[in-house]
Amino acid sequence: MPISISLKTGSRVDMVDITSLVQKEVSKAGAEEGMCFVYVPHTTAGVTINEGADPAVCEDIIAKLKELVPPNAGYRHMEGNADSHIKASLIGNSVSVIVEKGRLVLGTWQKIFFCEFDGPRSRRVYVNLVK
Amino acid sequence: MPISISLKTGSRVDMVDITSLVQKEVSKAGAEEGMCFVYVPHTTAGVTINEGADPAVCEDIIAKLKELVPPNAGYRHMEGNADSHIKASLIGNSVSVIVEKGRLVLGTWQKIFFCEFDGPRSRRVYVNLVK
Amino acid sequence: MPISISLKTGSRVDMVDITSLVQKEVSKAGAEEGMCFVYVPHTTAGVTINEGADPAVCEDIIAKLKELVPPNAGYRHMEGNADSHIKASLIGNSVSVIVEKGRLVLGTWQKIFFCEFDGPRSRRVYVNLVK
Repeated sequence: MPISISLKTGSRVDMVDITSLVQKEVSKAGAEEGMCFVYVPHTTAGVTINEGADPAVCEDIIAKLKELVPPNAGYRHMEGNADSHIKASLIGNSVSVIVEKGRLVLGTWQKIFFCEFDGPRSRRVYVNLVK
Repeated sequence: MPISISLKTGSRVDMVDITSLVQKEVSKAGAEEGMCFVYVPHTTAGVTINEGADPAVCEDIIAKLKELVPPNAGYRHMEGNADSHIKASLIGNSVSVIVEKGRLVLGTWQKIFFCEFDGPRSRRVYVNLVK
Repeated sequence: MPISISLKTGSRVDMVDITSLVQKEVSKAGAEEGMCFVYVPHTTAGVTINEGADPAVCEDIIAKLKELVPPNAGYRHMEGNADSHIKASLIGNSVSVIVEKGRLVLGTWQKIFFCEFDGPRSRRVYVNLVK
């Protein structure tokens, strides 16, 4: 089975920095170089890489997605989370990060964010390493 | 050459569940574990992973994209499919799925959808497997 | 260290065709087959694959993103580039391309575009090859 990370999200829409959780799995697996794939197995959540220094960046991403894809705006899917599914496809459900010398090769400001669009919930993220 | 899947789309904008077609290629190739890359070689189509149980989810995705990027809205590209190109870049042209024990590791509700944005047409999808 | 490509962008928002730069690195590395990952280590830039024949396609993508995510529209992030961060997450910061017989397997009209959302600047792109 792929490596699985469990996390809890705190609100309906939430961006959770999972960089250190992913790095921990890379280290545990002893991966020295190759690619690290971070995969979200849910359909109302996603994953993105963006700035982690100023939390306002994530707040702006969340606010813009809410403006473009508001909840309860006459959707056909009747579970109250149609907007969450749409956001998941706009953001995407996986990211690919290079691994070198056992470390994720991220830019200075980059962090990996789990994007919750229908929380709060217990969620999972899969990590797979390829040489 | 990479594995190529042929498919036909049924309307100008269409989301086609290709999960079983991709799984068939994974099985045929005898891939046991690693990553499966699904790549769309077109510029007016994409691929996404989302819920397959309720077809309304795809209808909502299609309707929202049409609202955000309407056809024939004063674009510079004169072929009548400028909106299709824009949608392709918003959704993305590839997905990465983990393979374990010969199976695509998808979440309970996840299906892989070919996203047609300028059909109906004959289209291709490439599949590549990496250990 | 991963292969690094340097480039300069020409305006605040700009799409730069980097296909030949990426192909050059694939050739230099002697990669015959597998996957090529193109990774942007910045948080106000992205990378996408779309049509390269008519420059109007990129102009339309840029114009639509500006309409959906206008600059200076009451964002919380105070550096004047909140829109750039949001666009980066909508477009994504990596693409995956199949390599066969030493060549990137792109569709007839496909080119790889570095997407500058907060330029003009000197930027980097990482390339990683996996068999």
